[in-house]
Amino acid sequence: MKRTIVITFALFSALIVYAGRVQHPCLLLTKDGVASIKEAKGQVPLFDNSLQQLLNSADLALERAICLPVPEHGGGGYSHETHKLNYFDMANLGIAWQICGRKEYANKVKEMLMAYADMYPQLGYHPLGLSNTPGRIFWQTLNESVWLLHVSQAYDCIYDTLSSSERRHLEKNLFRPYADFIMNGTEDNCANYHRFNSLNNHATWANSAVGMIAIVMGDEKLLNKALYGSDGSGDVGFIKQLDVLFSPDGYFTEGAYYQRYAIWPFMMFAQCLHHNRPELGIFEYRDGILLKAVDTLLQMAYEGEFMHFNDAIEKGYRAQELVSAVDIAFLANPSNKQLLWVANRFQHEVVVSDAGFAVAKAIAAGEEEPLQLRSCLLRDGANGDEGAFTIFRSPRADQNSAVTFKATSHGMSHGHFDRLNFCYYDAGNEVVTDYGSARFLNIVAKYNGHYTHENESYAKQTIAHNTIVADGRSHFDGSMALASKSHPKITACSLGGSLQMVGAVEDKAYDDISMERYLFYADVPFLEYPIILDLLRATSDKPHQYDLPLHYNGHMIELSVPYCKFVDNMKAMGSSSGYQHLWLEAEADAAQGTTSYTWLTAYRMYSVSTTTSAQDKIFLARTGAGDPDFNLRSEPVYIIRSNSKPGAHLFASCLETHGKYDLMVEQSANLDRSCKGIEVLKNEPELIEVRYLFKGERAILLTLQLNEKNPQYYLRYE
Amino acid sequence: MKRTIVITFALFSALIVYAGRVQHPCLLLTKDGVASIKEAKGQVPLFDNSLQQLLNSADLALERAICLPVPEHGGGGYSHETHKLNYFDMANLGIAWQICGRKEYANKVKEMLMAYADMYPQLGYHPLGLSNTPGRIFWQTLNESVWLLHVSQAYDCIYDTLSSSERRHLEKNLFRPYADFIMNGTEDNCANYHRFNSLNNHATWANSAVGMIAIVMGDEKLLNKALYGSDGSGDVGFIKQLDVLFSPDGYFTEGAYYQRYAIWPFMMFAQCLHHNRPELGIFEYRDGILLKAVDTLLQMAYEGEFMHFNDAIEKGYRAQELVSAVDIAFLANPSNKQLLWVANRFQHEVVVSDAGFAVAKAIAAGEEEPLQLRSCLLRDGANGDEGAFTIFRSPRADQNSAVTFKATSHGMSHGHFDRLNFCYYDAGNEVVTDYGSARFLNIVAKYNGHYTHENESYAKQTIAHNTIVADGRSHFDGSMALASKSHPKITACSLGGSLQMVGAVEDKAYDDISMERYLFYADVPFLEYPIILDLLRATSDKPHQYDLPLHYNGHMIELSVPYCKFVDNMKAMGSSSGYQHLWLEAEADAAQGTTSYTWLTAYRMYSVSTTTSAQDKIFLARTGAGDPDFNLRSEPVYIIRSNSKPGAHLFASCLETHGKYDLMVEQSANLDRSCKGIEVLKNEPELIEVRYLFKGERAILLTLQLNEKNPQYYLRYE
Repeated sequence: MKRTIVITFALFSALIVYAGRVQHPCLLLTKDGVASIKEAKGQVPLFDNSLQQLLNSADLALERAICLPVPEHGGGGYSHETHKLNYFDMANLGIAWQICGRKEYANKVKEMLMAYADMYPQLGYHPLGLSNTPGRIFWQTLNESVWLLHVSQAYDCIYDTLSSSERRHLEKNLFRPYADFIMNGTEDNCANYHRFNSLNNHATWANSAVGMIAIVMGDEKLLNKALYGSDGSGDVGFIKQLDVLFSPDGYFTEGAYYQRYAIWPFMMFAQCLHHNRPELGIFEYRDGILLKAVDTLLQMAYEGEFMHFNDAIEKGYRAQELVSAVDIAFLANPSNKQLLWVANRFQHEVVVSDAGFAVAKAIAAGEEEPLQLRSCLLRDGANGDEGAFTIFRSPRADQNSAVTFKATSHGMSHGHFDRLNFCYYDAGNEVVTDYGSARFLNIVAKYNGHYTHENESYAKQTIAHNTIVADGRSHFDGSMALASKSHPKITACSLGGSLQMVGAVEDKAYDDISMERYLFYADVPFLEYPIILDLLRATSDKPHQYDLPLHYNGHMIELSVPYCKFVDNMKAMGSSSGYQHLWLEAEADAAQGTTSYTWLTAYRMYSVSTTTSAQDKIFLARTGAGDPDFNLRSEPVYIIRSNSKPGAHLFASCLETHGKYDLMVEQSANLDRSCKGIEVLKNEPELIEVRYLFKGERAILLTLQLNEKNPQYYLRYE
Repeated sequence: MKRTIVITFALFSALIVYAGRVQHPCLLLTKDGVASIKEAKGQVPLFDNSLQQLLNSADLALERAICLPVPEHGGGGYSHETHKLNYFDMANLGIAWQICGRKEYANKVKEMLMAYADMYPQLGYHPLGLSNTPGRIFWQTLNESVWLLHVSQAYDCIYDTLSSSERRHLEKNLFRPYADFIMNGTEDNCANYHRFNSLNNHATWANSAVGMIAIVMGDEKLLNKALYGSDGSGDVGFIKQLDVLFSPDGYFTEGAYYQRYAIWPFMMFAQCLHHNRPELGIFEYRDGILLKAVDTLLQMAYEGEFMHFNDAIEKGYRAQELVSAVDIAFLANPSNKQLLWVANRFQHEVVVSDAGFAVAKAIAAGEEEPLQLRSCLLRDGANGDEGAFTIFRSPRADQNSAVTFKATSHGMSHGHFDRLNFCYYDAGNEVVTDYGSARFLNIVAKYNGHYTHENESYAKQTIAHNTIVADGRSHFDGSMALASKSHPKITACSLGGSLQMVGAVEDKAYDDISMERYLFYADVPFLEYPIILDLLRATSDKPHQYDLPLHYNGHMIELSVPYCKFVDNMKAMGSSSGYQHLWLEAEADAAQGTTSYTWLTAYRMYSVSTTTSAQDKIFLARTGAGDPDFNLRSEPVYIIRSNSKPGAHLFASCLETHGKYDLMVEQSANLDRSCKGIEVLKNEPELIEVRYLFKGERAILLTLQLNEKNPQYYLRYE
């Protein structure tokens, strides 16, 4: 109800505010902003540097001959990259004109826009035909939106330099048909209409691009379509995206890597709305969901790099999307001085905009405050009831570690089959790892930079993660459709302090198996670093083979049982579900009781100890099999295989961080693990009790009472 | 002749200087030094920090109960590590006493020394029996020397607090028999005598330790034995070590890693001599060989880490030996302000000594100057005529790369069979790599921290390096005795500027093969980064199989010919000479003409192109086979195999650095290699001519005239 009221108010006030009163520029850069920037020239170092870089780019663009190739290639190809360069050039030139007042900049934008206005009406669909929402300049409409989002800014910047007939010409031949195409597609293909009026990341781009050009043209009707969908109902459109694409905690279901991409149009268009429809209160909308999304994204990082899960490759605070988002978030809420820390310590640049200027000015005034990374439970789903992504941060200020636990919904097409997966980061390194995605973005020699086949056949499969694989099959048998139907359930969570914990249940990944995992992160008085205690239980009324992989970064130091490593011939571990991509390096019989494994990552040792029976097997494997094109990185994994009887099978583990190993100064200490054994005392439906024994006659007794409503846990140090 | 005169003068002046006039402390810390340090308290930050750390250690030592375990264990074991801790404790306590004047410090040293004086006379040989120069407290006499070198400093520091009868007691029961044992061994084992009177690194330690306790005790006779050998002849002893252990360029034949270890006693004892026998002019000796050795060591590093060759593991400027050496070198030559850079930017600490204080004071005064890393030819051998280790540094200031070329003598027991090997460092990374040694120092779980078997069977073998392997056999068939008999010959060298080159001939590594290699490092106008041109020629009157491996750090991107990668079964490449340690990942037929290979290291691409014939084979392999204990790291190698006819077989290669690949900001450019082909125009005994073709119709014509005396080379850009 409340939402409807806001919309009505917005529609009403828009009528008042809009009637021909738009001052240019008015998007990311405003007239007042430009005046302040000019006044402060030479006094705000970070801004001056960023401006200088922009001017360098604009000067290069000035020199370049205008070139609008006939649309022909896909991403990375000539026509694609040239049109991409063109929109960056136009945006840079427009901004340069605003700040410096050199008429050449504005003229160049005008010439380029006129050239596009000549070309655009002639274009049919892009010839590549690879997308179900094909574009005209680009192979997919998504890129058309990105183009328009940038070019709107360029047009806005030079708006006042154009005669009204020039504007009419551009709007009639370029911007209106361009926006119309994004919004409606063509008579014989209405895919764009459906995309524009849907609720996902591509639609956000489309809404934002159309909305931004609408603001520049002063077209309130068009703007309202961007905000509330083609039919104005508000069931789709930008505002609705804010309701459904983020969880109440600001988590985007595809994970950090794609949240980084999605945040860009969200924040840019929101900034424009803030400037032009302040009465919308866009940054306060849904309890400040956009600012929450930026904060959540910043939290999902370790050492400034986004945590790896789902389809992720290396990306972090330095990404252009984050530079933009952090700047805009600060302008929207200047009391959040931690954003300045991110800009100053990681990004080293700002956007040449009102927001970027505000950030740089505040940094120059010494306002930055250290970024506080905190333990958090990031609920998934529009209503926050579809599982969660949990992060434990190290309890002591002198440490730098993070444990992640993934019990979210699948994450759409970029999701992995990794229910109840965990990872561990420590001392600046990824220690217990997630492969992320198998892709060499932008490298033509590697499957044209696309996701490689091994992304499906390995990176998404369960064995590529740190969670249970039953009977050699991935969760949901690798079916995204199935996986998307359900989600795990968080059953307990306690964050912060010297004992943190999270628990979740997943009972749909396999037909007849219920999986539960309880992770504890405890600062134990007699151990050097906090320990991870891990209870992973699979319950079924049938017997199963359970594999528990642990992917790590580092070098194998010790396995507590004798093993046999293959020396002159090595085979792949299996033929499907990702096992075909693992070389079996060594195998062993597990110990009756506890089996321990130690590896070295940089300057520290890590030891995992797990309850095993003498019938269990240990495998040491390495990625790279079944990979004819060298698409996989070569990374090690430690696997425990148990053949369980019907009933509840419990893997009780602890992961210790210990020791110092610094070859540079030849210092080493505490290189041996502390854990001497793990005993499961109780493994009942509503009670788990485990004793972890440590050297020096110390022990931890972990008791977990699993009452349906209110699980209780106790840790006793003995 | 000159040297004899110096010695005589030294002996004479020693008589004058020495008679009972020693003031304590007098070794690394002097009475005047202590006074200056006390005066400047709180004013020299780097020194204050280092002092605070030392005091923390001394306070811990104060609290520790004195413990002198019965000698029993080897390195890493309990008795060994405890006695090691004891000498560090005593040295720290002694220094703490000097600076702070808290009597507890001095008393604790006295108690510990008295305990040793009680224990030492009772000891026989160490029970382990693993060394041919066994020690008493430690398993080898080398460690006895290290103990004495530290304890001399402790005794020196508290000398004035002891009564003359206490000193007599300590000297009679501990120091004199201890020094005597190092110098002479025992009646039934004179191995120590021979070691003390030999010329090598162990002898340097023995000489220095005996010399330092001699100075403290004011025993000039003993000091002279340390300086000139037991018989006083000067044919052995510390001074003679200076003549033979370093080449005229300050290069120590075992390579950077062991030069770092050797430099410690050299510089420490030299510092003591400088304070107590200034007339020796020890730092000017042999044209300042010690300071040259320190400088040479600093030059053999990339990003502060020593270049990997021979038996090397991670070690660099931060090593304790280097902290000590840099401090002492600066006190000896305060005009070398670059040393301050090393101390301030890399080491972040100084030794609490006169030298460390001088360094910290100069840093506080803002005197540091950037360390200049330069291209250099470091000749090997006492006379500088046993080959050389060459380093090219990047010609442009905005770059950060280094090429190394190893054409030295074998390097004694730590040498590898890698004649004419080259490596490449760029943009902060090791790009073309050398395995270094197979060892996990101090990790008991890894073969007790010793060199592992794979050090002999893989790391030392030729296939583990970037040079020719003929007929699947290592150079000298892996015989150190044979390899030590000869050395390669440098035939040409030109350093600095936009075209650098070095050439060498090795004709003893194989019976009937003469190998030549010519490396050029050229800043080419039409290429993004300097290129490495590599001519490697093997000449024989018999047919041979030549393998040319290139070990790299990074991920395989592209091979210019079709290849077949093994997907479900992988075999070791061979059964001996190190091939048994390589998994054969993929194989291919080489191209007729030129075969190219591209890999990615961090943010840049690297492409090697080499002349091949269609009969040549390409192998992509990875270390880890034949390694039952997981002792080897998993690293990739690219190998070209040619079966040559009798005559001269030439591998003409170029290694390009190109492109930018930054996933964080999604920037990529120039990811394709430029080299389109290599043609050998002439391959005659005295003339090599090669044309390298590049995209954009560019070419480099390389002409090399190999007149015996004066090789000439020309590079023409077309």
